[in-house]
Parts: sequence; structure tokens; C-alpha cells
Amino acid sequence: MGDLTKLEEAEAADMERQGGGGGGEEEEERDPESNMLHQPLLKRNRTLSSNPLAMVGAKVSHTESLDYEINENELFKQDWRSRSKVEVLQYIFLKWLLAFLVGLLTGLIATLINLAVENIAGYKLLAVVKYIEQKRYLMGFAYMTLANFLLTLVAAVLCVCFAPTAAGPGIPEIKAYLNGVDTPNMFGATTLIVKIIGSIGAVSAGLDLGKEGPLVHIGSCIASLLGQGGPDNYRIRWHWLRYFNNDRDRRDLITCGSSSGVCAAFRSPVGGVLFALEEVATWWRSALLWRTFFSTAVVVVVLRAFMEYCKSENCGLFGSGGLIMFDVSGVSVRYNVMDIIPVVVIGVIGGLLGSLYNHLLHKVLKVYNVINEKGKLHKLLLSLSVSIFTSLCMYGLPFLAKCQPCDSSITDTICPTTGRAGNFKQFNCPKGYYNDLATLLLTTNDDAVRNIFSLNTAKEFHISSLIIFFGLYCILGLITFGIAVPSGLFLPIILMGSAYGRMLSIAMGPYTKIDPGLYAVLGAASLMAGSMRMTVSLCVIFLELTNNLLLLPITMLVLLIAKTVGDCFNPSIYEIILELKGLPFLDAHPEPWMRNITVGELASAKPAVVMLSGIEKVGRIVEVLKNTTHNGFPVVDTEMVPAMGSPNGVTELHGLVLRAHLILVLKKKWFLQVRRRTEEWEVREKFTSIDLAEREGKIEEVTVTDDEMELYVDLHPITNTTPYTVLESMSVAKAMVQFRQVGLRHMLILPKYQAAGVSPVAGILTRQDLRAHNILSAFPQLEKSKRKKGH
Amino acid sequence: MGDLTKLEEAEAADMERQGGGGGGEEEEERDPESNMLHQPLLKRNRTLSSNPLAMVGAKVSHTESLDYEINENELFKQDWRSRSKVEVLQYIFLKWLLAFLVGLLTGLIATLINLAVENIAGYKLLAVVKYIEQKRYLMGFAYMTLANFLLTLVAAVLCVCFAPTAAGPGIPEIKAYLNGVDTPNMFGATTLIVKIIGSIGAVSAGLDLGKEGPLVHIGSCIASLLGQGGPDNYRIRWHWLRYFNNDRDRRDLITCGSSSGVCAAFRSPVGGVLFALEEVATWWRSALLWRTFFSTAVVVVVLRAFMEYCKSENCGLFGSGGLIMFDVSGVSVRYNVMDIIPVVVIGVIGGLLGSLYNHLLHKVLKVYNVINEKGKLHKLLLSLSVSIFTSLCMYGLPFLAKCQPCDSSITDTICPTTGRAGNFKQFNCPKGYYNDLATLLLTTNDDAVRNIFSLNTAKEFHISSLIIFFGLYCILGLITFGIAVPSGLFLPIILMGSAYGRMLSIAMGPYTKIDPGLYAVLGAASLMAGSMRMTVSLCVIFLELTNNLLLLPITMLVLLIAKTVGDCFNPSIYEIILELKGLPFLDAHPEPWMRNITVGELASAKPAVVMLSGIEKVGRIVEVLKNTTHNGFPVVDTEMVPAMGSPNGVTELHGLVLRAHLILVLKKKWFLQVRRRTEEWEVREKFTSIDLAEREGKIEEVTVTDDEMELYVDLHPITNTTPYTVLESMSVAKAMVQFRQVGLRHMLILPKYQAAGVSPVAGILTRQDLRAHNILSAFPQLEKSKRKKGH
Repeated sequence: MGDLTKLEEAEAADMERQGGGGGGEEEEERDPESNMLHQPLLKRNRTLSSNPLAMVGAKVSHTESLDYEINENELFKQDWRSRSKVEVLQYIFLKWLLAFLVGLLTGLIATLINLAVENIAGYKLLAVVKYIEQKRYLMGFAYMTLANFLLTLVAAVLCVCFAPTAAGPGIPEIKAYLNGVDTPNMFGATTLIVKIIGSIGAVSAGLDLGKEGPLVHIGSCIASLLGQGGPDNYRIRWHWLRYFNNDRDRRDLITCGSSSGVCAAFRSPVGGVLFALEEVATWWRSALLWRTFFSTAVVVVVLRAFMEYCKSENCGLFGSGGLIMFDVSGVSVRYNVMDIIPVVVIGVIGGLLGSLYNHLLHKVLKVYNVINEKGKLHKLLLSLSVSIFTSLCMYGLPFLAKCQPCDSSITDTICPTTGRAGNFKQFNCPKGYYNDLATLLLTTNDDAVRNIFSLNTAKEFHISSLIIFFGLYCILGLITFGIAVPSGLFLPIILMGSAYGRMLSIAMGPYTKIDPGLYAVLGAASLMAGSMRMTVSLCVIFLELTNNLLLLPITMLVLLIAKTVGDCFNPSIYEIILELKGLPFLDAHPEPWMRNITVGELASAKPAVVMLSGIEKVGRIVEVLKNTTHNGFPVVDTEMVPAMGSPNGVTELHGLVLRAHLILVLKKKWFLQVRRRTEEWEVREKFTSIDLAEREGKIEEVTVTDDEMELYVDLHPITNTTPYTVLESMSVAKAMVQFRQVGLRHMLILPKYQAAGVSPVAGILTRQDLRAHNILSAFPQLEKSKRKKGH
Repeated sequence: MGDLTKLEEAEAADMERQGGGGGGEEEEERDPESNMLHQPLLKRNRTLSSNPLAMVGAKVSHTESLDYEINENELFKQDWRSRSKVEVLQYIFLKWLLAFLVGLLTGLIATLINLAVENIAGYKLLAVVKYIEQKRYLMGFAYMTLANFLLTLVAAVLCVCFAPTAAGPGIPEIKAYLNGVDTPNMFGATTLIVKIIGSIGAVSAGLDLGKEGPLVHIGSCIASLLGQGGPDNYRIRWHWLRYFNNDRDRRDLITCGSSSGVCAAFRSPVGGVLFALEEVATWWRSALLWRTFFSTAVVVVVLRAFMEYCKSENCGLFGSGGLIMFDVSGVSVRYNVMDIIPVVVIGVIGGLLGSLYNHLLHKVLKVYNVINEKGKLHKLLLSLSVSIFTSLCMYGLPFLAKCQPCDSSITDTICPTTGRAGNFKQFNCPKGYYNDLATLLLTTNDDAVRNIFSLNTAKEFHISSLIIFFGLYCILGLITFGIAVPSGLFLPIILMGSAYGRMLSIAMGPYTKIDPGLYAVLGAASLMAGSMRMTVSLCVIFLELTNNLLLLPITMLVLLIAKTVGDCFNPSIYEIILELKGLPFLDAHPEPWMRNITVGELASAKPAVVMLSGIEKVGRIVEVLKNTTHNGFPVVDTEMVPAMGSPNGVTELHGLVLRAHLILVLKKKWFLQVRRRTEEWEVREKFTSIDLAEREGKIEEVTVTDDEMELYVDLHPITNTTPYTVLESMSVAKAMVQFRQVGLRHMLILPKYQAAGVSPVAGILTRQDLRAHNILSAFPQLEKSKRKKGH
């Protein structure tokens, strides 16, 4: 009850402030509001200046919020009204053309990556196998380690020196972008190129990482670049592309790109769409579902055409392999009601392992952050040591395994094999024997997955080999992800999970008739769900991978159980990474304690809002822009209305003007000699809506003479007259729902009092203000009430 | 430009009204605002009183809007704050338990329906076949017609007399419900029972309708009944169920129910979830995706268990058939790049046919509406004549077909068959011959689909038979849907589409190697997409139906093309029905011209808003409730604040109070002798939040004595203090986005002026105010500007 009383006090104080005070004369003295991302937003106590973001890792860079709101100022309205039917058709046509191009290019680049990886890794492995055949084991080791070292070096140098944002999977940043957080340099041309080459290098180097995450990022990069007409410095200023120069259309394009990426990674069109829907996107609508589906359809057609082409040995070492595809469609999967028990066991243990993996990876990434912060050299050294360790294990561990005799009853497979692929690798064994660990380790990751998933191979892998494999990939999965190369999380988790599934199949062998290969598939699914916490999209991806619909019910069950178990312990791996990167992601659900605090209280904890007049002095605008970091300012007209007869005058909230637009006005020196409203034609003469769409420009670049400082600017034509608003008595929980649902950057707080002298705007809310962490650091008593509820 | 000027005039007038007038003394004289659904909402001209809903069909009944907003009044807050951790766990547990039960019961009822239909229709057909074998053709005809007549009679009488809402598919109403429109008696126990029995009757009667739509409705009914603890009159007042006594949780449950229904209809768990997501639901979130997926998983397990059980002939005539399942997984589908051309042709023609079907069905339904309005007898007669016509055609038309010799090269199928099912029906033919039209017509609809989809039967059906079949089902598909029995649209469209696909396969035969059975599948898909305009969910449903992932790329292509072509002509069939039923569905996208009008202008066209004081006289409350039909009233405190020193006083917008809560206060006679604020304990003594959750009660049922009329009520504790608001300068387009995204029933309009004497609320927006049709009828000049843009 103690906190409640405090809250009530706060409310009472707030009420006094609003009702009694708030005269216009105070306006000018107020501190500038600070809503830049680097600074604390909520200052209950003005001397308090803890930086919540400083703690959460080194990867914080200057992020900006995106603005999905339709800016309705006079210029845009004019532009919109004059837009002809032809232009609308141009827009629609271009939207679909871009969706097509995104699919096409993503498909082509995925093809390229697959080709390169299969050939580089293939020739590398062939050479190693040749050395082994000649019993020159040390030479083989040296060759493999060196090759992997060099490939990792290429990937790491590119990432470290040219595009640090290309490291990692990129999915968390895309998720954040679609939530409204713009990480800089995330979707540039350099990032794209580094990601492609880096991904080829890292995957070919045999590191325990996949190309799936990077492909999602690549798809999004392509989408973003297409939308803006090319790289930043060489943009095609095609007239039609102006329609896409806004955050809303770019968001849709990037959603298309990310689903194309997933589709290209798994050859799973429906899975790709659902992945974007379930995991990546924050806003969704039916029309987008349709467009992303079109993109993924294009990707599938491209991939299919390319695989047809490669069937006739045109693609070097590339078989049907490069695209993971564990085709078990030919097999009639049989299971009965009693098999539900092992399935439940798989799910529960998978959920536990998945959340444990998340927990450990979190710790490892924190340590890595400290190392990576020390400089580029440290980053490089870390990547290279992981590469050497990986090579060592991959090559060395198979020597521990005993040679197994080939089972002559399996007539349809070759045993042992000495080539690049194959399910029974000879390695160091005599003729007629195979090394089961070499089958899993001395191969590409994709082939390893295919081998461990293969059906009717109940006795192929010895339990000791599986334990070594599982243990190794647990370690590699933890230490590889954080290094400075493009890395996906899907494959490491699939590898770990499949090993776990196989192990379980041996343990549960006597009780069930499920095939061990199927166990491996289910194990992989359970670990994915336990770590990534997706359900429907994973289910469909596995469905499309395995190409067997009869697996659907048990896959669903495993996924549901694993996710439920995992959710009991920690959030999904992507959420953990988002938090580590300090990206201000807005969750779908407000915290329960947010219902105990109103936006009015939030606003009173912040410095007062800086307002501009409808016709403002140039000097004041320059001062405000230089002294604050806000991106939006309410525009208020204060006028004496004679008809009213009121001595206090009337204030009118005209809207919200953006910093970018103010800078544009200053740059164009669109000043007035006297305090007057401008005509529509005057505005149109000076500005076009295309100018306004540009977001670039800083106040430091603007030079205004002292004489000009005394002139005026009419802000009315560039003010968004329809900002979204909340009442100051609104609870933060409900305000957050509106903020997120409508996709805002700024939300104005209106006073609930109506009287002369009350400021027409009680405050501004931004993304940072609505983040739980920031609110709690300004209102520690909420934290207490939250804890109390926990007990 | 003419309209623009008018708009500007309107704006200027509005500005004057807001700035200059609006004194408190006018308040009492204003007309009551009318936001009931039956009345026009926007009266530009007060004498204008056209009723937009009167035109659009007889099925309009008293619909209510749902309220998905979290009502934050003191009582609910108190309840929420005192909610312990155990109660939160109860809620979560119950949520999942209900999802499980919804799946379980939907699965069981779907099983029951399938069993009943297969057995009733099966024995009926067996008897008919026996008469035919004995060459007693007339007797066979009489038997079949009578049986169908009686079955239709049962279905129609139940629908007409007991539950008119059970007629039709129910999907549009569910779609409207999830959009926030409550059609009365839609989810009651009577409706459920009538829907189950009626669906069995109508489908067994061989009418051209499916059980798919009704199953979706049945799933939703089950969900709704479970959520409220049973039928209206016999509700279990289980303490735990109080958590679900709100529109938000009921909405989630019904979403679960509808996806379970689709899943049960097609045995397609992922398709079910996606159907709910793409077509039915308006609001969606990741957590819901997961829960619906769980429900559909349960359905699939139930259906699977039941099919296992029926394999051993325990279920009478029920084979694996009852659940449509065109299993083509065993067949390796081959197609190459050139096959894209026929696929495109299928898509284009399918889209054209689909939109043509929508167009014609619209006309037919309008005519049917007129007939059905004339009374119950007319409804019955209509249904029965359709039944007789259907029987006549089904039995008579096969006599037109020539007997075909059995192809001895097809060894694995029996030819001719005389039993209930089978691909080569003997009918009136001699031994060794079969009647291809009888194969398609003299069978259940499900079997007909299976027969026409069957692979490797290129020459089975003669073109003339296919044309007759197609023509017949086009007619039946148009005339059957609107009759007063539970009817689904999926199956008629699949039948039509498959016939069209087969016909096309014969026409295109020389140019392609695609199997005619596959053509039938693609034809069905194209017509579905052309009429229903879904893509991803249809694709997944077809995927799960055909059980062959290799079909995915071409299915996608067909669906995308057909939908695109169809969208050029008219909206989807569900949207057409929604409009016919006059349900105030809020579209996702605002119309472009809505950016030209502000909510302030809308508000000024409506009668002024009726406000209540924070502490209000009983007499005034009774008067307001009796004289208006509003469901929400802004609560405003007008107080002189001495500290302000302002002569005009201060008004404070306290929030919004609901009609239901006011009636509760009057019923409980919670009156005060003097004008004072009440304490928290006083409130809690009188009300519980459970009382407040009830929505029942009418003002006519309340009796208040004359003495009581002079007493006071403190409205503060029951007022929602956090209503969502918009500024009066907000454009209708953006206001609509907020209204829909946040799921509102009322949205307050705030003045943009801040001055003494300005009313703190400029108006209230409801669902009806934001509907394009209503706005256009009040502001005809917008219609003109819309047309002008079209030219």
C-alpha cells in the first residue's frame, strides 16, 4: 500500500501543477526537453542523470526512431490532392515491381552464395581427403586449418574494417527496424557486399554458423537499396521512386526482403512469410501478406530454375545439396498414439536445452562484447582463434572414434565413401570400415545435417560419437556466434538439436518405433523452438524442409511443448540480443505496472516541452534547434480573439513540426520580413513535397546571419496538423498500445483541463519514454510495487 | 477546386463555432446525439434523416458495437491491483484450457457431422442405386427426391423457426464480430444446435453446399459458449470465468474457434490458423498465433484418432472419406518451365469466373432477400424448391450422358461400380460400361470432388459430361447459397472450379503434360482465389489437402493471378455479404477522400455531444438515458478554482462513462443526498468489478421515484478515466486508423483551442461515424470530389 500512497501523492502534485500553475510566462524559462536516445528521458529528480543505455553493451550506436505516421501538412496534402490516377497506378505498379525484384535478386544472391560455398568448401575437403588417403594426416590438418584460417580472415577483416553491422545474423536489427528503430548503416551497399562475401567465407571456413540469418539480412538490404534507388552516394533519382521515400513504404519493402531471405535460406515460401509475420514484423496487414507471398514465390521459382540447371553438372561441386532439404517425402512415417510420450519428452528436454542455450549464450556474448570493445585487432584475433579451435576439433576428434564395419544389409548406399559427401566416410579406417564421427564432422554443415537426419540408419552412429558431436557443437555454438563474421543461428541450433535427438533416440530406442532420423528432425525442431520461441513459422519451415505432411501433428506438438517450457525460463534469443544491443524495441504488451502511472506523470518528470509559435522568429528556431536534440516541436498559436472577449486569450494547438523540416526552411532561407501568414502559392514556389521527404541535414551545417535572426518563419505550411494525441490522464499502458499500434515517433499529451492559461500541450512522448527500463529508473517506486506483486 | 472551397468554408465556420461560441449555457439546449445503429449519424442538415441501412437488405437486426478498450475506472483498477499472482496463473491456465476445449469439442462435433452425413447420404444413395439396378428408375427418383426433401425440410424448419442466424455460412458475421460488431444471437446454444443438425440435414440432402463454413461458425459458437460458461439462461457462474467476461478475451476465444473450425473442415491445422489470420480476424498478435495453433493441433489429433478408429469399419459407411482429402502425395508431379503458360491461363480465367460468380451471387442474394423478407413460409418454400430442383437435376441429368466402355488398361480400379462410392458408376449402363455423369452427380459432394480430382483419369470424363456438370453447378452454386439452411461456400466453389479445370485440361491437352486431375485442383484453387480473394491461407489449405509440396509453386502462382484478376472487378464474396447484411465493418484502409475531412467537421455535422457532470443529478441521468441512445457519455467537472483567479472557471475532462454502468448505478440506487465525492470504501461496498462487467439491463427496467430524482450520483468511480482521444483537427483517415488499430467503441474528440469557456469535448466518434457510406451521405461534396478524381 505504501507505493500506492506515493503514487497518489504524485497524482495530487501533478493535479496542482496542471490546475494552478502553467501560466504562459513560464514557457520560456523551461529547460529543453531531451528526447535523444543517448540521454535519460525521465528525470524525476532533475539532478538524476543515469544513462540507462550505457550499461547494456558496447554495440549501442546512434539509433534514430522511424516515423510511420502520415505527415499531413499543407504541402503533403497539396501533393496528395494533385496526385493523378496515373501516378497512383505508377505507385502500385512500382510496389509490385519492387516486390518482384526483391524476390529475384534475393534468389540470385542465395544461389551465388550456395554455389560459392559448396565449391570452396568442397574443393577444400577433397584436398584434405586426398591427404588422408595418403596417410599424410599432419599435412591434411595443416591444409585444412590454413584454408579455414584464411577464409575466416577474409570474412573477419571485411566485417571489422568495412561494415561492422554485417557481423552477426542481422535479424534482431531488422526486427528493431520494423518496430521503428533505425540502426545506422544497417542496410547500405557496403553492408550488403560484406555480408555476401563474409558469409561465403565464414560458412566455407567450416565455422559453426549458417547462412540463413545472413540471407535474411541480405534480402532486407536488397529491398532497402532498391527502394531508395541504389547506394547512398550513387542513388538513381528516378522520379517514380519518390513514392518510396518514406518510412512506411520502406518498412513494407524490408518486410518483403526478410521473408524472401528466409524463403531463400530454407526454400520455404510459406515458412518465409510466416517467419516475417511471427518473428520479424511488428505491423502487419493482409495486403502485405499477399505481397510478401509474391516475393517468396519469385524466390522459389529462381531457386528451382537454378537447381534444374545444376542437375546437369554445370555448377562444379554443387549438387542438390546447397539448399538444405531433408527430403523424407518418400518415406511413409508411421507412429501411433503411444509415441506421444517420447514426443513429449523430446519437447520438454528441447525446451530446457534451448533456454539453457539462451542463458549461456547471453553470458558468452557479454564477455565477447568486452573483448570486441577493445579494438579491431581484438575482434580479429577472437574470430581467428575460434576458427583455429574449430579446425582442430573438426579434424582431430574423428581420430577418437572407432572404425565401424560397413553393414552389408544396406545395399543402396555406398560404404565407405572417400569423396566429398556421403553418409559413411572412410577417413582413417581400413576398407570396409567407416568413421561415423568423420561423417558428421569432416564435411560441410549442411551435409552434416543431411547425414544425421537420414532415415533407416538406426545403427550408423555410435552413442560415443554422438556425444562427442553434441558436446563439440554445444561449445562451438556458444563461442562462434559472437565473432565478427556474418553468422546465422539456425544451423548451429539445428546441428545441436539433431545430435540431441539422435542421442535420445538411442536412449528411448526400446520404447518406440520412431525412426532415429525422425528423432533428429524433432530434436532440431525442439531446440529451435526452445531457443527462438517461434511456433507456426518453424512448423511450416520444417514441413517444407522435410516435405512430409504426415509429420505435421508431431512437429506441432514438439514445438508447442518446447516453446512453453522455454518461456518459463527466459525470453527468446532474439529478444536477448536486442536487449544486449540496447535497441529500444517496443514490446507488444505493456508491463502490468504501467497501468499505475499516467502519461501526465511521465511528462512532469521530463523537462517541459519546447513549443514554437505558428509564426516564429528565425533566432528562436535556431536557438531551439541548437540547444535541444528533439526531433519534433509542437506548434502553438497564441492569439487574442476579440470576439471571445476573454482577457486571457486563446491558444490553438496547430500541430507538430519536425526538426528536418525546420532545418530545410533555414537552409532555403525562406524568411518573412513581417509576422504574417503565407499564401499557398508562396509555399509551393519554394518547396516541393519531395524536398520535405528528405531527412538529411544538421543544424550545424546551417548558417544564418545576425540580420536574418530577426526575421520570421511561417511554420503553418510545414506543420503536421494531425498529430496523434493522448490525454494526460491516460495510463502509460494504454498510451503504449496506441503508440505501437499506430506506429508513432512522437505523441502529444493534451491537458485534461480546459481553461485560459493552460498550456495546450502537456508534453511529448517518444519511444524512449515508453520503455519500461527508462520509466523504472525515473520512478523507482514502480519497481518496488512490481517486486511486491511478485512475492 | 469547387469542393475544396466548400471544405474551406466549412472549416472556417467550424473554427468560428469553436473559437467564439461554445459557452456552457448552450449545453442543455442541444439535441441528443444519436449514435444508434438504426439512425443516421451525420446530419449536415438537421432535417435530413435518410436511413442508409434500410436499403441494404432485410437481415439487418439490432447490432451492437463491441468494446475492446481496457476500461480503466477506479473499480476495475482496484480489482486489478488486488489481483494476486495466483489469480493471474488461474487466468493463464484457463486461457489454455479453453483453447484446448475449443479444439477438442470442435474436433468431436466435426467428427459427428461427418459420421452422420456419410451414413445418411450413404444409405440414401445405396437405396437409390438398388432401385436403378432393378431398372425402377421412377421409383428411384421418387425415393431420392423425397429423402432430400425431408432432409432439407428438417434443416430449413430448424433454421427458420428457431435460429435464423444459423442460416448461411456464418463467416461474415464472425468476421464482423472480430472487427467489433456484435450480431445478436450469433453465438448462442440454439444457434449451435440448429447449425449442427441443419448442416447434417442440408449436406445429406445433396444440396450444393458444404459443411466447411458452418464448421467455422460451430467452432466459434463453442468458443463463445465455453467462454461465458454455457448457454445464456443456464450459465455456470464459475468464479474463474469472470476473467473472460469482457470483449477482448471473448474475441481471442472466437478467433481460436474459427481457426479450429477451418482446421476441422479441411484437416489443415496451419491453413486454419492462416485462414483466421488472413480472412477472419481484424486484430492479431503473436501470442494469439500460438494459441490458435494449439487449438488446431488438438483438432487434428482428435480427427486423426477418430479416423484410426474408423479404419476398422466401426463407423458404418464412413470411410476415410468424410474429411475431404485429395491425397496426391504418392504421385510425383512433374512440370517444367513451359507449363507456366497453362497455369497462367487457369489463373486468369479463374479470376474472371470468380469475380463473375461474386457479381451474380450478389444479384441473386438481393432477390432472395426480397423473398425471404416476406415471411417464414416463403423462406421454407424457397429452400424446398431448391431441394426439389437439385434432386431433379442430380437424378435426371446422368440419363443424358452416353455410356462409356470401361478401359481395361486401368487395372487397379473397379469398373463399373454399383456401390455408394467409386470412380466409374454403372448407373443405367450395361455391364462393362459406366456413366461418367453419374459418377459426378449421383454421389455426395465430397466424393464428387474426390472423383474429379483423381489422377491418371485423363479420358474418364467426356467433355459433354463436364460441360453439363459445370453448368449445373454454376446454377446450383448461385441458387443454393442464399436459402435458409446452414451452407458453406467452399465446396460449391471447389466443385465449380474443378469442373472448369477439367474442361480446360481437355482444351489445353495438346500443349501440356500436366495431369487433368491436377488441372482440376488448380481450377478449384483459382476459382476460390477469384471469389474469396485469399492467398496464403488458401495455398496452405490446398497444400495440406493435396499433401504434396511439389505443387506449392504452381498453386501459389495460380492463386496470386486469380486474386489479382478478381480484385480488378469487385470485392471478395465475404465483403459483398457483409455489405448485404448491413454490418458496419471497418475496413483496414481508409478511403483516400477521408484525408480531406477532419473529425471536427464530422462532429459539427452531428448533434452536439451530451455530457454529464462528475457529480450529477439522478434526474438528469435518467433523462439523458431515456432520451438518447448513446452508449457512452463524457464526464466533465466544471469547477471554480480559486487559485486560478480566472472568472471563467476551469473544466476538467474526467473521462467517459458507459450506459451499462449508469443503469447499474440506478438499479442499485447508489444515490447521495448531497453533491459530494465518495470514498473508495463506499464504492467497493456497493459494487464489484464483476457487476460492472455485465452489460445487460435497459433504462426501461429501472424505476426511480420523484424524490430520488433530486438526489445525486458520484460518477467518478465508474468513469473510464483513460479514454482514447483525437484532436479535432485530426483527419478522418488517421482517426479511423487509430480507431481500428486500438479497437475502440467510442473515441473522444478534443478541441484544439485552449481557452476559458471552450467545451472540453468537441464530440464523440463511434464506428458508424467512420463508415464511408455514412460520411458521404452527410457530406455529398466529398462524393463529388471522389468522382472527380476517378475521371
